[in-house]
Amino acid sequence: MSGTLSPLAPKSYPELPALEGVRFATAAAGIKYKGRTDVLLVALDEGTEVGGVFTTSKCPSAPVDWCRANLAAGKARALMVNSGNANAFTGRKGRETVEASAAYVATALGVPAGEVFLASTGVIGEPLQPQKFEGVLGELSARLAPAPWIDAARAIMTTDTFPKVVTATVDLGGVPVTINGMAKGAGMIAPDMATMLSFIFTDAPLAAPVLQDLISKGARQSFNSITVDSDTSTSDTLLLFATGKAAGRGAPRIADPADPRLAAFRAALEGLLLDLAKMVVRDGEGARKFIEVNVTGAVDNASAKRIAFSIANSPLVKTAVAGEDANWGRVVMAVGKAGEPADRDRLAIYFGGIRVAVEGERDPDYSEDAASAAMRKDEIVIRADIGLGEGRATVWTCDLTKDYVAINGDYRS
Amino acid sequence: MSGTLSPLAPKSYPELPALEGVRFATAAAGIKYKGRTDVLLVALDEGTEVGGVFTTSKCPSAPVDWCRANLAAGKARALMVNSGNANAFTGRKGRETVEASAAYVATALGVPAGEVFLASTGVIGEPLQPQKFEGVLGELSARLAPAPWIDAARAIMTTDTFPKVVTATVDLGGVPVTINGMAKGAGMIAPDMATMLSFIFTDAPLAAPVLQDLISKGARQSFNSITVDSDTSTSDTLLLFATGKAAGRGAPRIADPADPRLAAFRAALEGLLLDLAKMVVRDGEGARKFIEVNVTGAVDNASAKRIAFSIANSPLVKTAVAGEDANWGRVVMAVGKAGEPADRDRLAIYFGGIRVAVEGERDPDYSEDAASAAMRKDEIVIRADIGLGEGRATVWTCDLTKDYVAINGDYRS
Repeated sequence: MSGTLSPLAPKSYPELPALEGVRFATAAAGIKYKGRTDVLLVALDEGTEVGGVFTTSKCPSAPVDWCRANLAAGKARALMVNSGNANAFTGRKGRETVEASAAYVATALGVPAGEVFLASTGVIGEPLQPQKFEGVLGELSARLAPAPWIDAARAIMTTDTFPKVVTATVDLGGVPVTINGMAKGAGMIAPDMATMLSFIFTDAPLAAPVLQDLISKGARQSFNSITVDSDTSTSDTLLLFATGKAAGRGAPRIADPADPRLAAFRAALEGLLLDLAKMVVRDGEGARKFIEVNVTGAVDNASAKRIAFSIANSPLVKTAVAGEDANWGRVVMAVGKAGEPADRDRLAIYFGGIRVAVEGERDPDYSEDAASAAMRKDEIVIRADIGLGEGRATVWTCDLTKDYVAINGDYRS
Repeated sequence: MSGTLSPLAPKSYPELPALEGVRFATAAAGIKYKGRTDVLLVALDEGTEVGGVFTTSKCPSAPVDWCRANLAAGKARALMVNSGNANAFTGRKGRETVEASAAYVATALGVPAGEVFLASTGVIGEPLQPQKFEGVLGELSARLAPAPWIDAARAIMTTDTFPKVVTATVDLGGVPVTINGMAKGAGMIAPDMATMLSFIFTDAPLAAPVLQDLISKGARQSFNSITVDSDTSTSDTLLLFATGKAAGRGAPRIADPADPRLAAFRAALEGLLLDLAKMVVRDGEGARKFIEVNVTGAVDNASAKRIAFSIANSPLVKTAVAGEDANWGRVVMAVGKAGEPADRDRLAIYFGGIRVAVEGERDPDYSEDAASAAMRKDEIVIRADIGLGEGRATVWTCDLTKDYVAINGDYRS
């Protein structure tokens, strides 16, 4: 397993401000490794509301089922996240573990168990002992504090090589409100699977249906537009919590997702989600290149997105980028296999803004030197213009390197 | 690029008998490399009929378009195959090249151009000069002979590490008829793409609609049930030619695909197609393990096949096999992401016949030693029982190794 900092890591991390109504603490519960921080407890003041989206897997983990059920009421008083064990594919024991874990949190904080949210990442198929949480909850609830957020982001990491945090302050009805977010990405806990977890917190007074609308739409162009290796975790979880405390400073309560006062908040949230999603890609296993795939000219946006994912998930495209090769033939191949309307004689392919193919053949003006220079950069933009309509989509991915194979295949050697 | 013989290569190659009505020759036309055999010409006697299936890519190569158009009449007098250049994504020039190439063959052999079939594999996006064929067609047509078939199979190789040939003799209405076949697999011509080509020849007197039925159905459980890396070539071509010469020895002409006398032929053909398809997987880029994925208990066979391909195409499953790890969690993940009906609490997962997970959790009787021993073999069988119905499917793939990344990403270094 690689512990080396990703070459695509950010140069610095923002300092996240305290958020009224949010306190947290981390601890080492010894879930998989001794002496490693592996539990995050977040206490949320009364009145906190919540929205969320989850993995599309047909075999979700027990914590995902638990969160989905609790989301119906839209109220949240606590979030507990652990790394080291995903509590996925653990059968009846898994359900018992989430019930017991939520009960421990409820007792420790004096909140209803139905308002406790849980997320787990790490080994799957291994029973997770809820007693591990019981042992640290006293300590955690005694140490709850509004900072430092970077510690919270570190506690949920698995083989991520850097913590992922974002923040923004934005106007809501004339009052500044704050959004803080964190994520963990596609790192492996040998011998098991990657998971994306992300938690966003705000002091804005937003009703649960508004939060659900914000997070469902916000995920589309961010976490639902990235791929590392085309595989989907059983545990992906994205939650948005709003304490509403900014109401005390005069911020208006928003109960309608169509309220025009929400525009700036929505835009800021979407920007933060995109930043976090891109960080997940930048920390993709073995990643050396960050790839943006733009598809234009498809018959509609949905078609463009399917073509973009076909390109972004193609092992041949991803290995070509790893080899710094402007291999437009593989992009054509990936467009062709997407199954979406396409006409090879109308396709144009660009690498880093350089058009390498047009109207069904190599661009006669194409400079291999210029394309090669573009491919040597850390960040590569591939564009495929389908030439049929106005549909467009952008997705992000990383290259496929020998390190990916080593991280995911070598842990027995 | 790796030139090392695949560790999964067969220990020996069958010697294919001459087939009445089929003569061929190979030559070095210098299409991409000097001094390398890169053209195969097959002359087919009058009366030969043909069926075929092609890539599902929406951006097929010019030769694929050409063959599809000629297939309508069902007659064939020649097949010319070249390696080194796929004549794909070459625009108007590509169409001109197939027309000129077919015309050269037609002139050399004195046959109609509409009965000439063409296949090309190799670099894409580069114009293919039909004059290269003109230069060798005189020599080729002078040297036509009924053997040795292994030379023909070698001429169509790109980075395949071994030639792929099969043969069978089977009863048709009381008369023995012969089927000979060859394929090339997923090898790369740097800097471009993999292609699967396969050509099957028989002396049986089978009408074109029968051939089309045989090859369409035969492809389903063979070439359409394999995957190396989930990428699909623009040039995949599978053709079945029948010279009908066995009629002279008393074999009945079959004009109805439902004719019961066809049963043994169909079974033999399907066996040969499966053998060739498995050889393609065994020669997959960087392959060290041959993987059979069996899905049982799905709601229907189509659902089972989609789940099987989700497992077979999962980079995390394939790297786990490369690492000799019985990582059933990744198999669960791949079942879950397939989007097909599944219930994690009914799933059972087997590696090499050893049940490692059952009813939503690790099998309590599972022996890690036994599973590890199974994973150290060259051939791995993964079975996922979905537990919902009677649907079943089998697909074949190979592991994902660092060599795959090297072959496809390293050619510039």
